[in-house]
Amino acid sequence: MLAQTPPPPYYAVIFSSIHTHQHQLEYEHTAKRMIALARQQEGFLGMESAREELGITVSYWHDLEAIKQWRQHTEHTMARAKGRTLWYSTFKVRISKVEREYGF
Amino acid sequence: MLAQTPPPPYYAVIFSSIHTHQHQLEYEHTAKRMIALARQQEGFLGMESAREELGITVSYWHDLEAIKQWRQHTEHTMARAKGRTLWYSTFKVRISKVEREYGF
Repeated sequence: MLAQTPPPPYYAVIFSSIHTHQHQLEYEHTAKRMIALARQQEGFLGMESAREELGITVSYWHDLEAIKQWRQHTEHTMARAKGRTLWYSTFKVRISKVEREYGF
Repeated sequence: MLAQTPPPPYYAVIFSSIHTHQHQLEYEHTAKRMIALARQQEGFLGMESAREELGITVSYWHDLEAIKQWRQHTEHTMARAKGRTLWYSTFKVRISKVEREYGF
Protein backbone atom coordinates (compact mmCIF):
# COMPACT_ATOMS: atom_id res chain seq x y z
CA MET A 1 0.00 0.00 0.00
CA LEU A 2 1.22 3.48 -0.82
CA ALA A 3 1.26 5.95 2.06
CA GLN A 4 -1.92 8.02 2.13
CA THR A 5 -0.40 11.42 2.74
CA PRO A 6 -2.31 14.71 2.99
CA PRO A 7 -1.91 17.49 0.39
CA PRO A 8 1.59 19.06 0.45
CA PRO A 9 3.50 20.66 1.98
CA TYR A 10 4.82 18.02 4.38
CA TYR A 11 8.19 16.37 4.93
CA ALA A 12 9.80 13.19 3.63
CA VAL A 13 12.78 11.48 5.25
CA ILE A 14 14.49 9.39 2.58
CA PHE A 15 16.63 6.69 4.19
CA SER A 16 18.84 4.76 1.74
CA SER A 17 21.08 1.96 2.93
CA ILE A 18 23.21 -1.01 2.01
CA HIS A 19 22.98 -3.89 4.47
CA THR A 20 25.82 -5.92 5.92
CA HIS A 21 23.45 -8.91 6.39
CA GLN A 22 24.99 -9.41 9.83
CA HIS A 23 22.73 -9.93 12.83
CA GLN A 24 19.82 -10.20 10.43
CA LEU A 25 17.25 -11.56 12.89
CA GLU A 26 17.92 -8.77 15.35
CA TYR A 27 17.67 -6.29 12.49
CA GLU A 28 14.27 -7.62 11.37
CA HIS A 29 12.95 -7.50 14.91
CA THR A 30 14.20 -3.96 15.48
CA ALA A 31 12.95 -2.73 12.09
CA LYS A 32 9.43 -3.97 12.90
CA ARG A 33 9.56 -2.34 16.30
CA MET A 34 10.72 0.98 14.82
CA ILE A 35 7.87 0.98 12.28
CA ALA A 36 5.36 0.35 15.07
CA LEU A 37 6.91 3.08 17.21
CA ALA A 38 7.10 5.61 14.37
CA ARG A 39 3.39 5.13 13.70
CA GLN A 40 2.66 6.26 17.24
CA GLN A 41 4.61 9.51 16.92
CA GLU A 42 2.88 12.87 16.73
CA GLY A 43 3.08 14.15 13.17
CA PHE A 44 3.73 10.78 11.52
CA LEU A 45 1.95 10.64 8.14
CA GLY A 46 3.01 7.34 6.60
CA MET A 47 5.87 5.16 5.43
CA GLU A 48 6.96 3.28 2.30
CA SER A 49 9.76 0.75 2.15
CA ALA A 50 11.43 -1.57 -0.37
CA ARG A 51 14.66 -3.50 -0.30
CA GLU A 52 16.79 -5.28 -2.85
CA GLU A 53 20.57 -4.88 -2.80
CA LEU A 54 19.83 -1.32 -1.76
CA GLY A 55 17.10 -0.50 0.74
CA ILE A 56 14.93 2.61 0.65
CA THR A 57 12.56 3.66 3.41
CA VAL A 58 10.67 6.92 3.03
CA SER A 59 8.77 8.18 6.06
CA TYR A 60 6.43 11.14 5.85
CA TRP A 61 5.99 13.75 8.56
CA HIS A 62 3.89 16.79 9.25
CA ASP A 63 6.83 19.08 10.00
CA LEU A 64 10.51 19.26 10.98
CA GLU A 65 9.63 19.28 14.66
CA ALA A 66 7.98 15.85 14.35
CA ILE A 67 11.12 14.51 12.62
CA LYS A 68 13.31 15.95 15.37
CA GLN A 69 11.17 14.43 18.12
CA TRP A 70 11.32 11.00 16.46
CA ARG A 71 15.07 11.35 16.02
CA GLN A 72 15.43 12.01 19.74
CA HIS A 73 13.25 9.07 20.79
CA THR A 74 15.41 6.90 23.07
CA GLU A 75 14.67 3.52 21.48
CA HIS A 76 15.10 4.98 18.01
CA THR A 77 18.44 6.51 18.99
CA MET A 78 19.64 3.14 20.26
CA ALA A 79 18.45 1.39 17.11
CA ARG A 80 20.28 3.92 14.92
CA ALA A 81 23.50 3.31 16.85
CA LYS A 82 23.19 -0.43 16.18
CA GLY A 83 22.45 0.33 12.55
CA ARG A 84 25.69 2.24 12.21
CA THR A 85 27.80 -0.41 13.90
CA LEU A 86 26.12 -3.67 12.81
CA TRP A 87 23.53 -3.56 10.06
CA TYR A 88 24.52 -0.97 7.49
CA SER A 89 27.73 -0.83 5.51
CA THR A 90 26.63 2.57 4.29
CA PHE A 91 23.55 4.75 4.54
CA LYS A 92 22.28 8.21 3.77
CA VAL A 93 19.42 10.17 5.29
CA ARG A 94 17.91 13.01 3.28
CA ILE A 95 15.37 15.34 4.84
CA SER A 96 13.18 16.93 2.20
CA LYS A 97 10.08 19.08 1.95
CA VAL A 98 7.40 17.67 -0.37
CA GLU A 99 6.11 20.54 -2.46
CA ARG A 100 3.94 18.75 -5.01
CA GLU A 101 2.47 15.34 -5.63
CA TYR A 102 0.37 13.56 -8.20
CA GLY A 103 -0.58 10.02 -9.15
CA PHE A 104 -3.57 7.70 -9.28
CA MET B 1 25.48 2.00 -4.62
CA LEU B 2 23.91 5.02 -2.99
CA ALA B 3 23.55 8.11 -5.14
CA GLN B 4 26.50 10.46 -4.65
CA THR B 5 24.61 13.72 -4.43
CA PRO B 6 26.13 17.16 -3.82
CA PRO B 7 25.48 19.15 -0.62
CA PRO B 8 21.83 20.30 -0.34
CA PRO B 9 19.73 22.00 -1.45
CA TYR B 10 18.68 19.93 -4.46
CA TYR B 11 15.49 18.10 -5.44
CA ALA B 12 14.26 14.53 -4.99
CA VAL B 13 11.47 12.98 -7.04
CA ILE B 14 10.03 10.11 -4.99
CA PHE B 15 8.18 7.67 -7.25
CA SER B 16 6.24 4.97 -5.38
CA SER B 17 4.29 2.33 -7.27
CA ILE B 18 2.52 -0.99 -7.14
CA HIS B 19 3.00 -3.14 -10.24
CA THR B 20 0.38 -5.03 -12.20
CA HIS B 21 3.06 -7.55 -13.34
CA GLN B 22 1.55 -7.33 -16.83
CA HIS B 23 3.83 -6.83 -19.84
CA GLN B 24 6.77 -7.39 -17.54
CA LEU B 25 9.44 -7.78 -20.22
CA GLU B 26 8.44 -4.57 -21.93
CA TYR B 27 8.44 -2.87 -18.54
CA GLU B 28 11.98 -4.05 -17.72
CA HIS B 29 13.23 -2.91 -21.10
CA THR B 30 11.60 0.51 -20.80
CA ALA B 31 12.76 0.98 -17.20
CA LYS B 32 16.38 0.38 -18.22
CA ARG B 33 16.02 2.77 -21.13
CA MET B 34 14.52 5.47 -18.88
CA ILE B 35 17.39 5.16 -16.39
CA ALA B 36 19.93 5.52 -19.21
CA LEU B 37 18.05 8.51 -20.63
CA ALA B 38 17.63 10.21 -17.25
CA ARG B 39 21.38 10.00 -16.65
CA GLN B 40 21.93 12.05 -19.81
CA GLN B 41 19.66 14.88 -18.71
CA GLU B 42 21.00 18.25 -17.67
CA GLY B 43 20.69 18.59 -13.90
CA PHE B 44 20.45 14.84 -13.15
CA LEU B 45 22.28 14.07 -9.88
CA GLY B 46 21.61 10.40 -9.23
CA MET B 47 19.02 7.68 -8.69
CA GLU B 48 18.20 4.98 -6.16
CA SER B 49 15.69 2.21 -6.66
CA ALA B 50 14.32 -0.84 -4.83
CA ARG B 51 11.31 -3.03 -5.41
CA GLU B 52 9.43 -5.61 -3.41
CA GLU B 53 5.64 -5.63 -3.40
CA LEU B 54 5.95 -1.87 -3.53
CA GLY B 55 8.54 -0.15 -5.71
CA ILE B 56 10.37 3.06 -4.82
CA THR B 57 12.59 5.01 -7.19
CA VAL B 58 14.10 8.25 -6.00
CA SER B 59 15.80 10.44 -8.59
CA TYR B 60 17.81 13.50 -7.60
CA TRP B 61 17.92 16.72 -9.58
CA HIS B 62 19.67 20.05 -9.47
CA ASP B 63 16.47 22.11 -9.66
CA LEU B 64 12.79 22.12 -10.60
CA GLU B 65 13.60 23.17 -14.17
CA ALA B 66 15.62 19.97 -14.70
CA ILE B 67 12.67 17.90 -13.40
CA LYS B 68 10.30 19.74 -15.73
CA GLN B 69 12.56 19.19 -18.74
CA TRP B 70 12.81 15.47 -17.99
CA ARG B 71 9.05 15.27 -17.53
CA GLN B 72 8.58 16.81 -20.97
CA HIS B 73 11.06 14.48 -22.69
CA THR B 74 9.10 12.72 -25.47
CA GLU B 75 10.23 9.15 -24.76
CA HIS B 76 9.69 9.65 -21.03
CA THR B 77 6.19 11.00 -21.65
CA MET B 78 5.34 7.93 -23.75
CA ALA B 79 6.77 5.61 -21.10
CA ARG B 80 4.69 7.29 -18.38
CA ALA B 81 1.54 6.83 -20.46
CA LYS B 82 2.28 3.10 -20.73
CA GLY B 83 2.98 3.00 -17.01
CA ARG B 84 -0.45 4.40 -16.25
CA THR B 85 -2.30 2.04 -18.59
CA LEU B 86 -0.25 -1.18 -18.31
CA TRP B 87 2.36 -1.48 -15.60
CA TYR B 88 1.13 0.24 -12.48
CA SER B 89 -2.05 -0.45 -10.57
CA THR B 90 -1.32 2.64 -8.51
CA PHE B 91 1.51 5.13 -8.17
CA LYS B 92 2.41 8.40 -6.53
CA VAL B 93 5.02 10.99 -7.48
CA ARG B 94 6.23 13.38 -4.82
CA ILE B 95 8.48 16.29 -5.70
CA SER B 96 10.52 17.41 -2.73
CA LYS B 97 13.37 19.75 -1.90
CA VAL B 98 16.20 18.11 0.03
CA GLU B 99 17.20 20.50 2.78
CA ARG B 100 19.60 18.39 4.84
CA GLU B 101 21.45 15.11 4.61
CA TYR B 102 23.77 12.99 6.68
CA GLY B 103 25.11 9.43 6.76
CA PHE B 104 28.33 7.49 6.34
